[in-house]
Amino acid sequence: MISTLVLDRSTKTFTHVSNPDLISDHCGRPSDILWVDVTDPTSEDFDELAREFGFHPLSIEDCRHEHQRPKVEEYPGYYFIVIYEAEMQAGCQLELRELGIFLGVNYLVTVHSQPIRNIEKAQQTWRYWTDLAERKTGLPAYLLMDAIVDDYMPMLDDFSDRLEELEAQVFENFQPEALHDIFRIKKQLIFLRRAVVPLRDVFNTLLRREQPVFSRETMIYFQDVYDHLIRVADSIDSLRDIVGSTMEAYLSVSGNRTNFVMKRLTSIATILMTVTLVAGIYGMNFNFMPELRWRYGYIGALISMAVIALALYLYFRKIKWL
Amino acid sequence: MISTLVLDRSTKTFTHVSNPDLISDHCGRPSDILWVDVTDPTSEDFDELAREFGFHPLSIEDCRHEHQRPKVEEYPGYYFIVIYEAEMQAGCQLELRELGIFLGVNYLVTVHSQPIRNIEKAQQTWRYWTDLAERKTGLPAYLLMDAIVDDYMPMLDDFSDRLEELEAQVFENFQPEALHDIFRIKKQLIFLRRAVVPLRDVFNTLLRREQPVFSRETMIYFQDVYDHLIRVADSIDSLRDIVGSTMEAYLSVSGNRTNFVMKRLTSIATILMTVTLVAGIYGMNFNFMPELRWRYGYIGALISMAVIALALYLYFRKIKWL
Amino acid sequence: MISTLVLDRSTKTFTHVSNPDLISDHCGRPSDILWVDVTDPTSEDFDELAREFGFHPLSIEDCRHEHQRPKVEEYPGYYFIVIYEAEMQAGCQLELRELGIFLGVNYLVTVHSQPIRNIEKAQQTWRYWTDLAERKTGLPAYLLMDAIVDDYMPMLDDFSDRLEELEAQVFENFQPEALHDIFRIKKQLIFLRRAVVPLRDVFNTLLRREQPVFSRETMIYFQDVYDHLIRVADSIDSLRDIVGSTMEAYLSVSGNRTNFVMKRLTSIATILMTVTLVAGIYGMNFNFMPELRWRYGYIGALISMAVIALALYLYFRKIKWL
Amino acid sequence: MISTLVLDRSTKTFTHVSNPDLISDHCGRPSDILWVDVTDPTSEDFDELAREFGFHPLSIEDCRHEHQRPKVEEYPGYYFIVIYEAEMQAGCQLELRELGIFLGVNYLVTVHSQPIRNIEKAQQTWRYWTDLAERKTGLPAYLLMDAIVDDYMPMLDDFSDRLEELEAQVFENFQPEALHDIFRIKKQLIFLRRAVVPLRDVFNTLLRREQPVFSRETMIYFQDVYDHLIRVADSIDSLRDIVGSTMEAYLSVSGNRTNFVMKRLTSIATILMTVTLVAGIYGMNFNFMPELRWRYGYIGALISMAVIALALYLYFRKIKWL
Amino acid sequence: MISTLVLDRSTKTFTHVSNPDLISDHCGRPSDILWVDVTDPTSEDFDELAREFGFHPLSIEDCRHEHQRPKVEEYPGYYFIVIYEAEMQAGCQLELRELGIFLGVNYLVTVHSQPIRNIEKAQQTWRYWTDLAERKTGLPAYLLMDAIVDDYMPMLDDFSDRLEELEAQVFENFQPEALHDIFRIKKQLIFLRRAVVPLRDVFNTLLRREQPVFSRETMIYFQDVYDHLIRVADSIDSLRDIVGSTMEAYLSVSGNRTNFVMKRLTSIATILMTVTLVAGIYGMNFNFMPELRWRYGYIGALISMAVIALALYLYFRKIKWL
Repeated sequence: MISTLVLDRSTKTFTHVSNPDLISDHCGRPSDILWVDVTDPTSEDFDELAREFGFHPLSIEDCRHEHQRPKVEEYPGYYFIVIYEAEMQAGCQLELRELGIFLGVNYLVTVHSQPIRNIEKAQQTWRYWTDLAERKTGLPAYLLMDAIVDDYMPMLDDFSDRLEELEAQVFENFQPEALHDIFRIKKQLIFLRRAVVPLRDVFNTLLRREQPVFSRETMIYFQDVYDHLIRVADSIDSLRDIVGSTMEAYLSVSGNRTNFVMKRLTSIATILMTVTLVAGIYGMNFNFMPELRWRYGYIGALISMAVIALALYLYFRKIKWL
Repeated sequence: MISTLVLDRSTKTFTHVSNPDLISDHCGRPSDILWVDVTDPTSEDFDELAREFGFHPLSIEDCRHEHQRPKVEEYPGYYFIVIYEAEMQAGCQLELRELGIFLGVNYLVTVHSQPIRNIEKAQQTWRYWTDLAERKTGLPAYLLMDAIVDDYMPMLDDFSDRLEELEAQVFENFQPEALHDIFRIKKQLIFLRRAVVPLRDVFNTLLRREQPVFSRETMIYFQDVYDHLIRVADSIDSLRDIVGSTMEAYLSVSGNRTNFVMKRLTSIATILMTVTLVAGIYGMNFNFMPELRWRYGYIGALISMAVIALALYLYFRKIKWL
Repeated sequence: MISTLVLDRSTKTFTHVSNPDLISDHCGRPSDILWVDVTDPTSEDFDELAREFGFHPLSIEDCRHEHQRPKVEEYPGYYFIVIYEAEMQAGCQLELRELGIFLGVNYLVTVHSQPIRNIEKAQQTWRYWTDLAERKTGLPAYLLMDAIVDDYMPMLDDFSDRLEELEAQVFENFQPEALHDIFRIKKQLIFLRRAVVPLRDVFNTLLRREQPVFSRETMIYFQDVYDHLIRVADSIDSLRDIVGSTMEAYLSVSGNRTNFVMKRLTSIATILMTVTLVAGIYGMNFNFMPELRWRYGYIGALISMAVIALALYLYFRKIKWL
Repeated sequence: MISTLVLDRSTKTFTHVSNPDLISDHCGRPSDILWVDVTDPTSEDFDELAREFGFHPLSIEDCRHEHQRPKVEEYPGYYFIVIYEAEMQAGCQLELRELGIFLGVNYLVTVHSQPIRNIEKAQQTWRYWTDLAERKTGLPAYLLMDAIVDDYMPMLDDFSDRLEELEAQVFENFQPEALHDIFRIKKQLIFLRRAVVPLRDVFNTLLRREQPVFSRETMIYFQDVYDHLIRVADSIDSLRDIVGSTMEAYLSVSGNRTNFVMKRLTSIATILMTVTLVAGIYGMNFNFMPELRWRYGYIGALISMAVIALALYLYFRKIKWL
Repeated sequence: MISTLVLDRSTKTFTHVSNPDLISDHCGRPSDILWVDVTDPTSEDFDELAREFGFHPLSIEDCRHEHQRPKVEEYPGYYFIVIYEAEMQAGCQLELRELGIFLGVNYLVTVHSQPIRNIEKAQQTWRYWTDLAERKTGLPAYLLMDAIVDDYMPMLDDFSDRLEELEAQVFENFQPEALHDIFRIKKQLIFLRRAVVPLRDVFNTLLRREQPVFSRETMIYFQDVYDHLIRVADSIDSLRDIVGSTMEAYLSVSGNRTNFVMKRLTSIATILMTVTLVAGIYGMNFNFMPELRWRYGYIGALISMAVIALALYLYFRKIKWL
């Protein structure tokens, strides 16, 4: 499904074009800036795009076969950008949605097979910023990418909160199940990292080069996206560090608990075996065992057993084994 | 065995030349592009190649003694490339097959001792792309290397799936044998990394230099191979991270299970020893033990044993030790 | 709340201006240097700043939405710096307070929502250094940032001391609780690192570039801030190394203690079971058991039990299991 | 002991000069290339070298005090290279032998206190390559260094084979002693790495610089040495990775085995304690215990004991604890 | 305490000046090179230095407040270097002593609060090298720094030897106390690294820049210091690797020992419980137990106990659990 938003720079008005055939008309007018949004593209849509804007077969290929790494590639006359929109699903489950962006001098083409929340949002902001709208396609591109990158941050805060909980589960009331959750977060941070870090690196080289497409003024905006990417990447790395330490701590706490169980076992075994020994002694069949004939032998034996058990119990209590 | 495919650029026709002696004829014609494929080369084949194309002895040596690292080396008049084709054998076992590529202005020589699947595939694609076939040797070289690199990706998906299974084996129903599988995957990722990362690094420097052999147009294709190499390398690194975490998690889960066994042992020992103690007490031989004479002493003892055992059992159940 | 300190360079006098409306007057006079300090800024304050000094909307945005990463950004005519003041709270708890600095040719604007101790301190030092006060805004900026960075160092010494204590708790008298403290320090070092390292990196690139705002003379001062940042970052890394090793050591010591408990259990069980066995033997009901009829059989059995127990005890003592 | 091999480039003949006094004669003749090999040098030998070739005191010092790091240093008129020949002794024990090389326009001086196998070998190859012998000193230097570097590779294969064995010892039939061997290999890889990596780094910078001594043609040879150094370094890093994983796996397997022993203990203790409890019950002295008077009471008790033991045994078998 | 050594380059004579007031006289004479050594400086000494040589307040500050990171800073007209002299105290305890060096065209000022062994040594070598003494201040600076850096190496050998011992303590006769020593060495290597690595990095940038103070000839000497710094840093990194592996190995060996104790416990418990069971069986009170009436029942029971115990003992011996 192709939907196009056209800005006439001379009149500062936005028009919504739903008929794909009209794109080429607007494309030719220098006063127009086009945002062509292609949702769930068919093979014909791709051919259409290639014909209309003259995209290189390789960038079309990359768009067609999804699961590209996030990147910014320079083609003659346009940039091809792959970026991932992230959303946290229930249960700290991360969903990454791929978005291909073709950024030319007077057009912005966004291609995605899944719905991308931030496109709507960015288009609204673009309409709203009419005063700034003289700018070239750099502005809507910035608005879109910034919205996507800014979405990462609250997600990392969620991870951070979840980790605090897991920390409590490790240190305060140990729950063996915490491990799987820690592991899951670790894994998702790895995936998230892969969606962010390559983009950061590419933006870095992009901002240091001479730019034919972006004006110096737009560059400040892109610098801002880059800055947010660094922040996200730094946060991911910090979280990874914390997750790693939590996992290590888990191992140690788990070891401590084994130790604790061992101490319990030793204490209990010592007490019961000692008392049983007393019973065993008076269970011997020697003919001459004076205690057996005493009036209070039995009750004495029971009392001595209780005393021994209590003494041992208190001792183990004292050394904190029980 | 030497087999040659010749493209006559003026007529856009492909000829298959099986007689090695004719290579020199075609080699001299500027309108011809040759793809010389040498399978399981003999010492004479190497001499032939050296004589025909004037390859430097060192590159011939590298080709002769296999087990080179993947690389792209610049020699006067041609490039010497070593790349590895990977295939997943049964049981997540990785097979790497070495391929040497000599890439000159109008020839492409591929040398390999094992059969390389992707050569056939790349030659077919080359024939098919007749419209694009004006291009120099960069195109078939791209088609070959791209096919090889694209083969890595599904393999990594296999590893990824296998790791998901192993994750379940670690967290859901712990199986000690999982460790060996985790270790094997780790090892194979190390080998795969060694086949990919040096190539990525060399492509990186290659693409940043002034190129005498490749035209700017071809460079976009090589950029694409490079891009895929980065993606593969990124995936390998993510998988390595996950494998490492899985191994760590395995250790923790294994520790937890020891803990669990310890708790069981403690619970069982406590119950049995306590009950045995009761039996021991009534096994004492004191003359005066009133309970022994009671009518229901025995049955009472048995019942009290059962009650004690049950109480302890319920207690250990409650604290989840049993 | 906006409070302004003005230095008239011609007369070397400092004036305190509390009425925000007068800022623009001073701002226009070339002989004046302004330090505008904005505490807990309202939305109007931000608008005021943007209007007065012509700050770029993006830098205003960054200031408004806190939790930026520490950075130095170059905008036309001024630098925007984000830095964190750190303070150690009770219990090795780290508090980081964000501070935004706009540094222009003749003004220095500091914006913060929480009170920043070092602003007062830096302003006092600035007043004091009247002889040096011909310098541009680089001096007060240096004084402020240097004071903030120098605050990190004693904090790291606190961490270091705390770690020494924890080391003793791990190696000398093992305390399982130490783990949580080690983990907390590790986490806070991660946070502290995030506040320092990005700043260090930015200063690094800043000092290597051509500077339009800072004079060469001021640069030596900034070099000094950079130098202190490196030192802090190096110390953080060393501490992280030590924390990591302490955590590892904790795990090992904890393992050793399990070993120790196991040895105890084995020793005690061996002794008690052996002695109980003796009692069990003389508890057998064979008709012909000569020892049972001996005069000193019972006392002999008790003595032999004691001897066996003592012998085993001494043996386990000797091999250091008890 | 000084031994010199002289190549007269005009006549392509090799002469062996054993009298050190004649070195200066040959050194002056432009058609001659000298290879001066100094074995186990005395203090006079060093003075002789310094006088004859005008070596800088620092390079002489480095040569005199061995245990230098591998390096390539540029001095006016010559290069000073330190490289290590490695040999695998019995028992995977690594021996590193230091070799100092002075490489000038028409001389090559090798200094070593221990015999270096590859010097002999390189000299023979040099004699053999008479056709190529017009080249400057770059050729013999290449032959020597290449021979040394190529020696590393089979050694790494040995390590790799040894690691495979150790892997089997860890996973298939666990042998606690494997740990020490793993550790030893790890340590030797650290030492080997130290002998290779600095050299690789220096070669890297060397090959990127403008070279006054080596001709462009020779550079291809040095590129080859560099390439082999990278390969060796890559292999070392892979092996280190594998060693590290093997060590981790060892820890996990060792933990699993503790778990296995614990399960055994629990199973055995449960069975024996339960059966003992039955015996204990019939050892009680209650007057009224009908079973005691039964004709088949005893045999019944024994059978019930056996049945209980068998049932428990089968149960533990089923859950794989025995 | 200020003590000055003056070299008159015209007469090649050294004079010792103890009166600080004469420094300015010598300082003005172009033929003189001064080495001003300030031990345990007072506040007046710093003022004196600042006045005499015109040092920048920041470098004076750095010198006054010790605990700087090792560094080389360029100030107008001189370099300010901070370096650490290391000495191994008893018990592998490392002592680091800070030394500040001001290096100008014709003066060298060394400032330290603790006595620095190598100053004396370097001054003696300087006097001795009278022939080379035409050189500028680079020579004594080299001699001093080289002496300090060379001191690190034997220290690392000490660490290495100590680690070998600890390795034996871990693998041959396990001593739990070894852990604390391993940890201590690890910590000291971290400190030593911090004293060496920043210096190496600064020397690296220093040697790559255009140098106004050092002549090209002196640079070769500084290259040598740099080279030694790399060697020291490499050795530290190798040792850190080994220490880390030793710690890991410790953990594994410790785990193995727990396993060993567990096996012992299981074996002993099995033997004793089995034998006790036999005793328990014959302790039952059944009326009809034929064995009890046998003549050799008792002795038979004892023998069967011994046989069972021996059989089990041999079995556990065989599987190496005892």
